[in-house]
Amino acid sequence: MTKNKKVNAAILIIGNEILSGRTQDTNTGTIALWLNSIGVKVSEVRVIPDIENIIIETINHLRKINDYVFTTDGIGPTHDDITAQSISKAFKLKYEIHKEAFKILEAYYKIGEFNEGRQKMVWMPKNSKLILNPTSGAPGFNVENVFCLPGVPSILKSMLGGLKNEIVGGKPILSHTISLKTVESEIANSLSNVQDLNNETEIGSYPFFKAGKLGVSIVIRSEDQSKIDKCISEILEFVNKKKIQIVNK
Amino acid sequence: MTKNKKVNAAILIIGNEILSGRTQDTNTGTIALWLNSIGVKVSEVRVIPDIENIIIETINHLRKINDYVFTTDGIGPTHDDITAQSISKAFKLKYEIHKEAFKILEAYYKIGEFNEGRQKMVWMPKNSKLILNPTSGAPGFNVENVFCLPGVPSILKSMLGGLKNEIVGGKPILSHTISLKTVESEIANSLSNVQDLNNETEIGSYPFFKAGKLGVSIVIRSEDQSKIDKCISEILEFVNKKKIQIVNK
Repeated sequence: MTKNKKVNAAILIIGNEILSGRTQDTNTGTIALWLNSIGVKVSEVRVIPDIENIIIETINHLRKINDYVFTTDGIGPTHDDITAQSISKAFKLKYEIHKEAFKILEAYYKIGEFNEGRQKMVWMPKNSKLILNPTSGAPGFNVENVFCLPGVPSILKSMLGGLKNEIVGGKPILSHTISLKTVESEIANSLSNVQDLNNETEIGSYPFFKAGKLGVSIVIRSEDQSKIDKCISEILEFVNKKKIQIVNK
Repeated sequence: MTKNKKVNAAILIIGNEILSGRTQDTNTGTIALWLNSIGVKVSEVRVIPDIENIIIETINHLRKINDYVFTTDGIGPTHDDITAQSISKAFKLKYEIHKEAFKILEAYYKIGEFNEGRQKMVWMPKNSKLILNPTSGAPGFNVENVFCLPGVPSILKSMLGGLKNEIVGGKPILSHTISLKTVESEIANSLSNVQDLNNETEIGSYPFFKAGKLGVSIVIRSEDQSKIDKCISEILEFVNKKKIQIVNK
């Protein structure tokens, strides 16, 4: 894969607790920022319930239309952790004890602590590649272009670093933010003109309301710094003309 | 619609800023908690980019398989706010000035301030029903079973109350949480037995790590309090037997 190809990924959050609103998902942001930094664009995110046939259908759809798919949650020891068996079925692979994972967890726990519940965590699709877990032992796994990570944010975060060599990204996506003391409607037309003149560059406008500051952040994103620079100068031109103050957000 | 029917909804977050990881979505949690409280179960959440044909396809898929669809973001005044025109195309409705919305914003702004940028916010699918905005004037809109809300969390939150009479929910989904000072693998088998004996009740297990406390929250969810109570007593039975401490999370 050359560095010029666009590379995309989908994130699949498997978890009733996100759908019920009980838990606030933060893993999307963690994975998305990391993927962007290595040149992978997130094409979509889905949150689905812990229901086997929905997991299977969604995985089989997303893995065909994305270079990579990252799942979170459902790889723990309890009955509602059904990601590994669902992925096995999606790929029509045997769901079995992963010997290397077994050895890792056998060594991780004290004698007598590697009980039946914990042993569930070493059942994976046949021939999975392990994703090592420096925080709490139990590894994630990778089958073809699908990478299965846990749901606990701190553990997930600690596992991403080890994946860097597994993921081949495109050019890193660069971004620049200009924050202004204004409201969106004051700059909408001028900004739209800049977007029209630079249609290969993604320009987003995001109002913010924070600690007495009210304003708009303009975010310019491209793989090409010179394209970003061109937008910056065109935006600063109308900002100066309209005497709008630039702020640190 | 009777109160016994199961009612479901999808949430569609339209926003490059969530996919890039720049912004942490909190609207999913806000909408999901509110929907649960009125008896609507969230079946799935999708986050998609600000790209017209993706919005159209996704809306046309989700609105057919869900009782309700809630979208957030993309209804502001800037060039990247394309929800209203995309929804118009999805429903094959004319995209036009909504007279009532125009009047609302004309009255909301001082004379001379209702400029071209702001006027973009009154363009909607023909015959949309307005969703009033007590925070910042500009209304959202509703076409058939699709409800379009803004992306700014505080504004979105303030608009949900006004929707209560528009949404016909089923029985409210009740839940009970038992937090334990243990690890998942200690209770996995016992909990799995309780789930097997109560297969119409949703039992989730969620490890937590917070301020020196490490534990597991068991969440029991059902429309039927007696089914929840039955699970509680079965869970407490093994909790007491195993001498596991119950904690306040």
